[in-house]
Amino acid sequence: MNNRVDRLRPLLFENNIDAIFITQQENRRYLSGFTGSAGSLFISQEKSILATDFRYVEQAKTEAPGFEVVQISNGISKWFPDLIAELAVQRIGFEETAVSYATYIELTSSLRERKENISLIPCKRVVESLRAIKDEEELNYIEKAATIADAALEEILPSVEPGISEQELAWRLETRMRQNGSEVMPFQIIVASGTNAALPHAKPSMKKIIEGEPIVIDFGARVNGYSSDTTRTICLGKGDTTFNRIYDIVLGAQLTAIETAQAGMTGEQIDTLARTVIEQAGHGNNFGHGLGHGVGLAAHEEPRIGPGSKDIIIDGMVFTIEPGIYIAGWGGIRIEDTIALRENSFNILTKTRKTWR
Amino acid sequence: MNNRVDRLRPLLFENNIDAIFITQQENRRYLSGFTGSAGSLFISQEKSILATDFRYVEQAKTEAPGFEVVQISNGISKWFPDLIAELAVQRIGFEETAVSYATYIELTSSLRERKENISLIPCKRVVESLRAIKDEEELNYIEKAATIADAALEEILPSVEPGISEQELAWRLETRMRQNGSEVMPFQIIVASGTNAALPHAKPSMKKIIEGEPIVIDFGARVNGYSSDTTRTICLGKGDTTFNRIYDIVLGAQLTAIETAQAGMTGEQIDTLARTVIEQAGHGNNFGHGLGHGVGLAAHEEPRIGPGSKDIIIDGMVFTIEPGIYIAGWGGIRIEDTIALRENSFNILTKTRKTWR
Repeated sequence: MNNRVDRLRPLLFENNIDAIFITQQENRRYLSGFTGSAGSLFISQEKSILATDFRYVEQAKTEAPGFEVVQISNGISKWFPDLIAELAVQRIGFEETAVSYATYIELTSSLRERKENISLIPCKRVVESLRAIKDEEELNYIEKAATIADAALEEILPSVEPGISEQELAWRLETRMRQNGSEVMPFQIIVASGTNAALPHAKPSMKKIIEGEPIVIDFGARVNGYSSDTTRTICLGKGDTTFNRIYDIVLGAQLTAIETAQAGMTGEQIDTLARTVIEQAGHGNNFGHGLGHGVGLAAHEEPRIGPGSKDIIIDGMVFTIEPGIYIAGWGGIRIEDTIALRENSFNILTKTRKTWR
Repeated sequence: MNNRVDRLRPLLFENNIDAIFITQQENRRYLSGFTGSAGSLFISQEKSILATDFRYVEQAKTEAPGFEVVQISNGISKWFPDLIAELAVQRIGFEETAVSYATYIELTSSLRERKENISLIPCKRVVESLRAIKDEEELNYIEKAATIADAALEEILPSVEPGISEQELAWRLETRMRQNGSEVMPFQIIVASGTNAALPHAKPSMKKIIEGEPIVIDFGARVNGYSSDTTRTICLGKGDTTFNRIYDIVLGAQLTAIETAQAGMTGEQIDTLARTVIEQAGHGNNFGHGLGHGVGLAAHEEPRIGPGSKDIIIDGMVFTIEPGIYIAGWGGIRIEDTIALRENSFNILTKTRKTWR
């Protein structure tokens, strides 16, 4: 953790700020180790302060030994100027996408009242850019999560028969992942069958699964806060010709992207590798989302792999590759793996087989 | 749902706005019925628009029949001015605590570029104030959730023996609630035993539970998005004299608050009813959080029942009453029920017994 704060400090110079005020939950956890749901970090070149309330003070001291823990109460406009004063700095960065309009107004007016010569500077993706590069410990947690998820799908699928509801299938999968050591699900499992599978983000319904229809299963396990993310599309019994045709296009697109991606490409370039395959098969309009996203403490984080993404994919990043084709009134197919880029090699962490048909 | 939008429209006049832009997830669901994780509502006196992306358009049409569904893509600064232009209004309210500083800046500059004569007006607690008063359908869901949670605790506790870990106990409780019909947990179950119980928001650990120590169990079920919230503190075998003494103080404080609360009191006044009992017993400093909070689509919502709260507690509100005493190095006791105020009567929805000792 100290190492992470050390990596952050040069970024304060780069952003022309003397200190940074962190409230975003995963950023807070990443830098400090503190897992509570409320608290703020103040990090300058000299100091590392974690401010939290009564409920979390003891936990913060245990989890974040590298930080000076300060107990706060009352509104933020009361304690914020005091903490800032203690840092003895002038330009304080804040996370522009994590701080609400209301909080920003409250902070600026509390500083104005104190007539402090302090500026609040909006900052973008400072900690997120650090989080995008995983260290060995983080990679290890994601690998563990992937292994738990892989095993759970293998274990439950033999017992899945036509007539089971989407919700029941999702619950069996969740139960098995939890029993195998996963923490609370990083995101709600998607089980979308038949025409429901045409909705990329369908929620499991009471609909019963029948033979021959596509069943999209999108799921992840979580270990020490770190997620995995897998999608498989399966079919009970024989799929129709549409299923087989679409499946092969999506699988081809996914494997092409994984096999031809290169370190140093942008997110857009990697997206194009898969998108071209789908477009050439005449389904460009049926693939309406990006190809993938980073995975870590958040189930969706940097880098973004999709149209317009200028994120450079480099060593240490962990992300999904998940092309899909969605056809209203029929269903959809998506195939997704979590990939780690290590020493110029794209390693697939989620190893569940793709031959469930 | 239409009825909810009808209740909202007079509030637009009160806030001196022509339309309101809603992004906060529970507010969006409450007004529209749309359960997706991304989307925005635009509500004027004449129009109800739901803007969402590719992933959710079909779902939005099904779930939110009272809204005109508009598909959006690209950044918010691209589609926001178009939608605003369609409303043909001048003063647009936005949720000041839900819109980030970055989004606010993006929206104002996109409007400025178009040279539209449109103002963005920060609004506070507009939809939240509606959500605080539950209708019969909402109350019904919360009651169902409470019944599921009650039954689950009754069902699992006989099998709980010394040596079980906090995590295992939490998992048994979650499994039972889910099997009994709960959706995904509204918040992570707390099981905090022994000295861990001194942390009001402890997470379940691998610590094994032993006889005689306090075990705080804080849990809720969820039905159609609506939560219940219960805490019981139990003890395997005989509690020590501290346990019994503290338990009786906390229970006395809780029952006093429930029995003497009156419709029309402020959140602060109801808090004081319980706090006075705990202070008089010499433990005022060991009760460091508010007495309670509203429960509904969010596990924590309006009203706030605690020091300084001016929220008036009126008919239709559903909230918790949860005093606690926390003693570092020993543990803690908290007892919590979800209460509905209906026709001047404070009805306890969570009926699990308080005599687990």
